[in-house]
Amino acid sequence: MRSISVIGIGETKMGKLANRSLRDLVKEAGSKAIADAGIEKETIQALYLGNFNSSCLCGQSLTSALAAEELGLGSIPTVRTEAACASGGAAFRMAYLAILSGVYDIAIVGGVEKMTHREGAVVTAGIATAMDYGAETQAGMTFPGLFAMIANRYFYEYRDVKKEMGICAVNAHSNAMLNPDAQLPKELTLEKVLSAELIAYPFSQYDCSLVTDGAAFVVIAAEDAIGAEQRKRAVRVIGSGHGGDVLRLTEKGSLTSFLATKKAAGDAYGMAGIRPQDVDFAEVHDCFTITQIINTEDLGFFASGRGGDAVAGGITARDGKMPINVSGGLKAKGHPIGATGISQMFEVVTQLRGEAGERQLKQADIGLTHNLGGAAAACLVHIFQGR
Amino acid sequence: MRSISVIGIGETKMGKLANRSLRDLVKEAGSKAIADAGIEKETIQALYLGNFNSSCLCGQSLTSALAAEELGLGSIPTVRTEAACASGGAAFRMAYLAILSGVYDIAIVGGVEKMTHREGAVVTAGIATAMDYGAETQAGMTFPGLFAMIANRYFYEYRDVKKEMGICAVNAHSNAMLNPDAQLPKELTLEKVLSAELIAYPFSQYDCSLVTDGAAFVVIAAEDAIGAEQRKRAVRVIGSGHGGDVLRLTEKGSLTSFLATKKAAGDAYGMAGIRPQDVDFAEVHDCFTITQIINTEDLGFFASGRGGDAVAGGITARDGKMPINVSGGLKAKGHPIGATGISQMFEVVTQLRGEAGERQLKQADIGLTHNLGGAAAACLVHIFQGR
Repeated sequence: MRSISVIGIGETKMGKLANRSLRDLVKEAGSKAIADAGIEKETIQALYLGNFNSSCLCGQSLTSALAAEELGLGSIPTVRTEAACASGGAAFRMAYLAILSGVYDIAIVGGVEKMTHREGAVVTAGIATAMDYGAETQAGMTFPGLFAMIANRYFYEYRDVKKEMGICAVNAHSNAMLNPDAQLPKELTLEKVLSAELIAYPFSQYDCSLVTDGAAFVVIAAEDAIGAEQRKRAVRVIGSGHGGDVLRLTEKGSLTSFLATKKAAGDAYGMAGIRPQDVDFAEVHDCFTITQIINTEDLGFFASGRGGDAVAGGITARDGKMPINVSGGLKAKGHPIGATGISQMFEVVTQLRGEAGERQLKQADIGLTHNLGGAAAACLVHIFQGR
Repeated sequence: MRSISVIGIGETKMGKLANRSLRDLVKEAGSKAIADAGIEKETIQALYLGNFNSSCLCGQSLTSALAAEELGLGSIPTVRTEAACASGGAAFRMAYLAILSGVYDIAIVGGVEKMTHREGAVVTAGIATAMDYGAETQAGMTFPGLFAMIANRYFYEYRDVKKEMGICAVNAHSNAMLNPDAQLPKELTLEKVLSAELIAYPFSQYDCSLVTDGAAFVVIAAEDAIGAEQRKRAVRVIGSGHGGDVLRLTEKGSLTSFLATKKAAGDAYGMAGIRPQDVDFAEVHDCFTITQIINTEDLGFFASGRGGDAVAGGITARDGKMPINVSGGLKAKGHPIGATGISQMFEVVTQLRGEAGERQLKQADIGLTHNLGGAAAACLVHIFQGR
C-alpha cells in the first residue's frame, strides 16, 4: 500500500468574518497550504472541497471549481463532497483513495463555509437540511433539539453528565485561548455554564458549537512522489475509515453510541494496526458537548457510559492523558461546517510537527481526527503519525 | 491496474413525477440496479450519490445517507458529490477510484434530482447556483442566457448553426420515442423548431434541456471480486477522465471549446488506449443544442467548427455513423441534474449489452459518456466496452 502524507496545511481565522467572501476564505487557506507544502502549484493534480450548504446560504454551488479558479489551478479536476458536518473529512477520504489508486500523486483538499452573513432563522434552516426533511425538519426539529434528545437518552441509560458536559465547554474555551485561529478565545467558568438559561434541556447555549465562517486546506501526496524537503515535515496518514448510518433518528439502533463512528474507527484502527490507547490525542466532533463524550466512548478511548468520568477526572484536558480538542474544537475554535474536518487535521498536523506553540502537547506522536455528519449518519476517522 | 466493470443498472422513468419523493426515486432506481446485478445487497461496501441541489429544492442535504437508508444498506460509508450537472459522473469517478485503490470491491453509485414540484423561478434560481454568484448570478444571468452567448460566439467564430441545432433537437425527440424512460417522447419537426419563439437568441425552448425528476443507479465492481454470473453481463470501464475549468465565463480561454472536456477526454482515451474514432456511440451532455455540437468536437469525433456539418449530414442520428444521445439525451429523455451522468451510463450499458430493444444500435462495442457541469467548469468522460 502506497504511503501517503499531508505535506502542507493552511487555515483562516475562524469567526464572524463579515467582510470576507467564500472566494477570500478559500484563497487564503488554500494559498497558505500550498506555500506551507513548498511545492509549485502546477504539480497539484486534483482538488476536493468539503462544503456543506453554500448552495442555500451563499447562492453558490460548484464551489470546488470556484476554489480551483481562485487558487489558479487551471483545468485540474475538482469535486465538492457533502456529508453534512463531515463534508471536509469526506473530501480528504476521496483524495486519499484517489492517490492510493495511483491515478494522482498530489492533491489539495479543502473545506469552506460562509454562514454568519445570513440571519439566524436562515442558518438554522440551512443546517436543518442535514436531517430527514419528511420525518424531522417538517416536524419542526432543529439540531440542538435533536442532540438534546440524545443527551436525555444518555442520562437515562447511564447517568446525568450535565456537569461533565459543562467541563467539556470550559476546556474547549481554555484551549481556544491558546489558538490564534479560534473564534471564541474567552475564558468560561463552570459556574457560568451551569447557571445559564436552558435552550433545549439539558443544553444551554454553552453546550452548542458555533456558527462560523472559515476555510481550511491541506496538501496530500504520495511519499514516492515528493522531494526530500517535503518528506522532512510530512505527516503520514496511517489510518482512514468511513462509516455511515441511517438518516432518521427513529431508525437508529442506539442514541448513545454511533454506528457510523464505530465502523469508521474500526476500519481506521485496523488499517493503522494500532489500538485506541496508542492514540496520543484527538480532535473529535463536539457539535454539542454530549457528542464529545459519546465520541470518545465510540472511539474506544473510554468505556461506554464512562466518558463523563474521564472528563471529570481531567483526562481529556490539555494536560491530561488523552487531550481532546486542543484546538478549542467546534465549541470554541468554531464550526465552519464544510471546513471543520480539514481544520481538525490542521490542528493534528500542527501538533505532530511540534509547531503548536503555547498549546503544544508534550506527547504527540499519533493523532486522530473524528468528523461526524448529520445525526451521526456519516463519520470519517483519520489517524496521523509524525516523524 | 484492476479491471472494473458495471454489473448492474437501474433507473426510474424521467419526468414530472408529482407524487414521487426523493426517497421513492432512489429506492426504485437503486433496487433495480441491485436486482439487475444479481448480488446480495450485503456485499455492497460503499455508496456514492450525485445530487446537485436537493438542499435548496427539497430542503434535504446528506442525500447519500438517505439513499443508503432507503436501500437498507446498513452502516456502509456514503458521500454525496456535487459538480453541478456533472454530479453523477463525479460520483461514478469517486467510486471507480476507490475500487481501483483496492479499499472496496463493490460499490453502488447513483444520482437523483427532484425539481418539478417547485415553481419555475425557484428552479431557475436553484440551477443558477452553478454559476459564479458574484459575477454572474447577481447580474441576472441564467443558464439559457449563458449558453446563448456561447452559441453566438460559435456563430461568430465558425458559422450560424441554428438549423443544425434544430436537427439535434429533432433527433433527440425521435430517439426518445423509443425510450420508455424518456420524459418527452414526442415527435418534433424541424419546421416547428425553426419557427418557435426565441427565449434568448438563438435559443427557443426547443434548444433547452428539460426540468426533470428522476434517479439512476449503477453497481460497479472489481472483476476479481465478482462471480461468473455477474461477469457474463459485466460492462468494462476502460477509460475514466475528469477535467475542470474556471467557473466564470469571462475567465475562460475559449467559449467554443471546453477545456474541461478536452482534459477529461484526453485522460479517458489515454487510459483506454483508443482514439475518438474507435468509439461507436456516445451520450453527450446536451444541456443546450449548441452544447451537443461543441461537445462532439471537443471529444474529437468531428473537427472544430464542423460538428454542425456532421449533424446536417445525418452522422449523429440513430442510424448514422456516430449516433449521439440514442437515449433522447438531456433534451428529450430529460435532465434530472444529479442523475444525468448515471442515466447516460444506463443507456450506454444497455446498448453494449444489446438490450436496448427498438433503439438498439447495430454497432455497439465501445460507448462513451460525457457529463458537463456548470458553464463547462467540470467534466467527466467514461468509456465502456461490452463483452
